[in-house]
Amino acid sequence: MARIVQTFSGGMDSATLLRYLSRGGHELRTIGFDYGQRHKKELQFASKMAADLGVPYTIVSLDSLTCLLSESALTNADVAVPDGHYAEESMKITVVPNRNMIMLAVAIGYAENLHYDAVAIANHTGDHTIYPDCRPAFVEALDVAARLATYGGIRVLSPFKHISKTEIVAIGNAIGVDYRDTWSCYKGGDEHCGTCGTCVERQEALDEAGGVAVPAALDQVSAAMNEALT
Amino acid sequence: MARIVQTFSGGMDSATLLRYLSRGGHELRTIGFDYGQRHKKELQFASKMAADLGVPYTIVSLDSLTCLLSESALTNADVAVPDGHYAEESMKITVVPNRNMIMLAVAIGYAENLHYDAVAIANHTGDHTIYPDCRPAFVEALDVAARLATYGGIRVLSPFKHISKTEIVAIGNAIGVDYRDTWSCYKGGDEHCGTCGTCVERQEALDEAGGVAVPAALDQVSAAMNEALT
Repeated sequence: MARIVQTFSGGMDSATLLRYLSRGGHELRTIGFDYGQRHKKELQFASKMAADLGVPYTIVSLDSLTCLLSESALTNADVAVPDGHYAEESMKITVVPNRNMIMLAVAIGYAENLHYDAVAIANHTGDHTIYPDCRPAFVEALDVAARLATYGGIRVLSPFKHISKTEIVAIGNAIGVDYRDTWSCYKGGDEHCGTCGTCVERQEALDEAGGVAVPAALDQVSAAMNEALT
Repeated sequence: MARIVQTFSGGMDSATLLRYLSRGGHELRTIGFDYGQRHKKELQFASKMAADLGVPYTIVSLDSLTCLLSESALTNADVAVPDGHYAEESMKITVVPNRNMIMLAVAIGYAENLHYDAVAIANHTGDHTIYPDCRPAFVEALDVAARLATYGGIRVLSPFKHISKTEIVAIGNAIGVDYRDTWSCYKGGDEHCGTCGTCVERQEALDEAGGVAVPAALDQVSAAMNEALT
């Protein structure tokens, strides 16, 4: 049992991670970030899911950063959200510079303030192609930095770093995540658009999750947990 | 010549660093942070110094983090700022959890957005005793993480990491920093209180700077610059 602050966007990956950690009996807090993203409605989904699990959720406003991180289609209303697949070069425009380090840095400060043990993030193998700050090497480097920066030796957990989004959804199905409670679409309209990168990935994962060997995926997750916590 | 975003609080250390980098011909931007600190007036001092050097300065509001990082005397009005010397155990109450990682993470995102090369921070040997996120090992670990997190391979420069505050002031005196333009006091009153940890350090550095061998200190600074930029 550990005491963990999880970054929680309200998407499929972080919803699965929250349920996984909750079932593990860990003491949890969650934080979400309002950084001027178009799809701010994800935070409402996150808030409801956290409440359903009885986990405190805090939304941190990073509004004043929007102008500093203005190149991304997610934060700049003048840049269109591209359609297509995550792996494509065109999807680079959805990268918010250094987003994960900023969010994790805040989560680490919060964890230190609470005298908690760790922070957790739901990055996975499918993110790696275009988001440099989702790669295992980055999260592991930040884990080293976090232990050095804090009296409590805060750890950075990245339990999904070696599995795919499809494997995440297969695990979620097995542990009772209802993906209708999650929000993915970058365009933030009334319904999921079905064509932006994150919608394409979402549908692909939902369609293919049935073919995954869940116990093997869970082994990878628990190995990643143990590696960081010991 | 590099393009650098410097974190700039308006204190003696960052004022000296800004002048040093400015004299080095680097292209510069500076950012300061409003994180609910008592001594918010430091930001006015920073703003004026940056303007004097013709360097753009942006203040980022992290106000919504105050409640998450509430244990520190700097952000919690109910906790008194202790008097005494930095090296003392009592001074731990002035630590804002993970402050430097949070500030550097934002600066790194800003640098990536600008297609800059690096960020810079003015931590020095005197900070190390009580502020874990001022230690060279932390800044070096974050440098590794920053290169991995960004397309531009942003570097984290920490030119003063091997010199003391007294050496910083000696360098500042040699390159024309007027320390009356800087603000240190944690209490943020009309005048420097003269008794809080940062005031005691400030006076000590001003008193002892005359005894420093400036060329040797400058050699250490330029070695730290070169190490990180190459």
